[in-house]
Amino acid sequence: MDKIEQNFLHALQTVLGQPNPFVPLHEPEFMGNEWERVKDCLDSTFVSSIGKYVDHFEVMLAEYTGAKYAVALVNGTAALHIALLLAGVKPGDEVLIPALSFVATANAVSHCGAIPHFIDSEFETLGIDPFALNDYLNDFSLSSSEGLTNRFTGRRIAAVVPMHTYGHPVDMTSLLDVANRYHLPVVEDAAESLGSRYQGQHTGTFGRLGTLSFNGNKVITTGGGGAILTNDAELAQQAKHLTTTAKHPHRWEFFHDAVAWNYRLPNLNAALGCAQLEQLPDFLHRKRLLAQQYQEIYREMEGIDFVVEPANSQSNYWLNTLELRQPSFEMRDRLLTAANDAGYQCRPTWKLLHKLPMYADCPHAPLPVAEQLEASLINVPSSAKLAGAGI
Amino acid sequence: MDKIEQNFLHALQTVLGQPNPFVPLHEPEFMGNEWERVKDCLDSTFVSSIGKYVDHFEVMLAEYTGAKYAVALVNGTAALHIALLLAGVKPGDEVLIPALSFVATANAVSHCGAIPHFIDSEFETLGIDPFALNDYLNDFSLSSSEGLTNRFTGRRIAAVVPMHTYGHPVDMTSLLDVANRYHLPVVEDAAESLGSRYQGQHTGTFGRLGTLSFNGNKVITTGGGGAILTNDAELAQQAKHLTTTAKHPHRWEFFHDAVAWNYRLPNLNAALGCAQLEQLPDFLHRKRLLAQQYQEIYREMEGIDFVVEPANSQSNYWLNTLELRQPSFEMRDRLLTAANDAGYQCRPTWKLLHKLPMYADCPHAPLPVAEQLEASLINVPSSAKLAGAGI
Repeated sequence: MDKIEQNFLHALQTVLGQPNPFVPLHEPEFMGNEWERVKDCLDSTFVSSIGKYVDHFEVMLAEYTGAKYAVALVNGTAALHIALLLAGVKPGDEVLIPALSFVATANAVSHCGAIPHFIDSEFETLGIDPFALNDYLNDFSLSSSEGLTNRFTGRRIAAVVPMHTYGHPVDMTSLLDVANRYHLPVVEDAAESLGSRYQGQHTGTFGRLGTLSFNGNKVITTGGGGAILTNDAELAQQAKHLTTTAKHPHRWEFFHDAVAWNYRLPNLNAALGCAQLEQLPDFLHRKRLLAQQYQEIYREMEGIDFVVEPANSQSNYWLNTLELRQPSFEMRDRLLTAANDAGYQCRPTWKLLHKLPMYADCPHAPLPVAEQLEASLINVPSSAKLAGAGI
Repeated sequence: MDKIEQNFLHALQTVLGQPNPFVPLHEPEFMGNEWERVKDCLDSTFVSSIGKYVDHFEVMLAEYTGAKYAVALVNGTAALHIALLLAGVKPGDEVLIPALSFVATANAVSHCGAIPHFIDSEFETLGIDPFALNDYLNDFSLSSSEGLTNRFTGRRIAAVVPMHTYGHPVDMTSLLDVANRYHLPVVEDAAESLGSRYQGQHTGTFGRLGTLSFNGNKVITTGGGGAILTNDAELAQQAKHLTTTAKHPHRWEFFHDAVAWNYRLPNLNAALGCAQLEQLPDFLHRKRLLAQQYQEIYREMEGIDFVVEPANSQSNYWLNTLELRQPSFEMRDRLLTAANDAGYQCRPTWKLLHKLPMYADCPHAPLPVAEQLEASLINVPSSAKLAGAGI
């Protein structure tokens, strides 16, 4: 084992303590009112599509994020699918998304019948680079009365989807500038960034619509769940309508007016979500402490940097992230092997989306930064309860 | 109030007792191990995509239904969507479904990019009429090396979807005969018929794939949930793969090989499902008693029949159903008004799917029986706990 591996492992051990026998990457914590809320929901028998917890969870989400409306859904992929539809994405359109993202971002585009078009990231935020995007749009797009089109494929460019990687906010001021310049609707994939703010404003509330995820590995969980955020009353109403079979309210009649989905969050999962959201400030506080511990110990380390939140931003530090100064798949995998063998669950970032077989033929920008990040990022254990574990 | 309304109400009152203040159409019952299982799931922290309850629920479903494999999913619509894809339904294909069904059956076809083609039902089963289907296929379809096509639209006919209405099994022997004759894959929509058997065999296990729903209004509930049943190991494996982001198992690598969905059932909901499934025989027993009570009281009634299970079948009597001898929307709505005003939640059957605006341009067979059923069916309160309520 080389010095870098030894130092890397030693730092993990200092922050996290001895694995006993295994430290997961991220695990949920149910130390609040989870039992009480879930039991109350079972006792009410309203565990499914109707019930007070869905309404309550939506109000809590809107209050917490500052969005005017929140619509609770079955997961983050479903939320992004419907948000894209509501932003006007049509079959055959292209949607600009980062090449460096979880596969769900691209899948949601595909579920609209649209084609993902992959964009580069920047080192500071790990998200879409607005300046590179601007230059690229200048080169490959054409503006007409029909809207923006890709001059090479002839397809309409329907939206841009900034994704706040591991909780670190995208440079939204610059991104919104570019989007406005090209009249592109912005749909924010804030699946990873509940609790993250850019210039004090919650991620997911800058775009026409934003989406959240409450999967089991996220900052808070509903088992499976997600939400759409928007400030537009009409879009919120449509989001609810399209995700609840587009049924018109009537005492008994079954009148549905659109092809629609069964994407609502069950009340049982919303009950868990309410209890989890009550604890979010505490989770964020402890996750921040953990991030500081990582930051401190990796500050002096040769060859490895800790990724800190971007300027003007407050990150939820969903997944703490290390970055090799010299991108190297070989070194990355050696560190991953050492850590996982020792019982610390660590992961690389995602395989870039344009390298996956089903997206290999999709258009993409030059991706020099994403390519470097792919070979240099490592996520380390990040559960709130790990704060102070090594002391 | 006319005599028929008075008799109808009196019969409801005799079977159900006085509403106090309201008798829902169908409500779940959590008198078994629901809290124990859900609490155990919360305590494990495995509430999301991984956990023992999903596996356990799938094994229990396979054992109960006799299917070789069951794949637990987020709801019945998602299950039918993926089952249709796996049966080979492609964008632009037509899929034969009953005009008399809940809108989800048609939506799942649309989610494949395919077009629903509506078929008539028969009085005895309330489901697809295999003989009418045979005659209709003889008229409108063409067989070629490409498969079966609609001679008028030129589109491929990709599958037929029998739906077991309110739990009453379709005449599967005749339906399978027709499907075999025309080389049509059968995908059974058994969303309403968990516990229903045709010639002793569980519904949902006759077709290449079958689907179940565990929505809050169903015989058992997981909050929201569904499943795919199949006897084909390869299809079961593909169903699991496509509904869990098509990720290849690896210690840390994110390699996904297909456009895929996040449709897995959370472990929390599966925990509830396990407890519910344990009680299914008891629910079915009491629902059967309730159906007998309805059958008895409506036996002598002028103008109204109780819909009994078809020959060679055992129905779960999910929703008990009355049928006006003289189809009449006006009379139907008068009875619905009287019952709902009195606190008994009653509903008509669904508006026929070809009458909904988004499906109005889809092809359909002559629908004389479905048209009559639409104007004559009324569902009455059917929860298991109502058995003996009026005594």
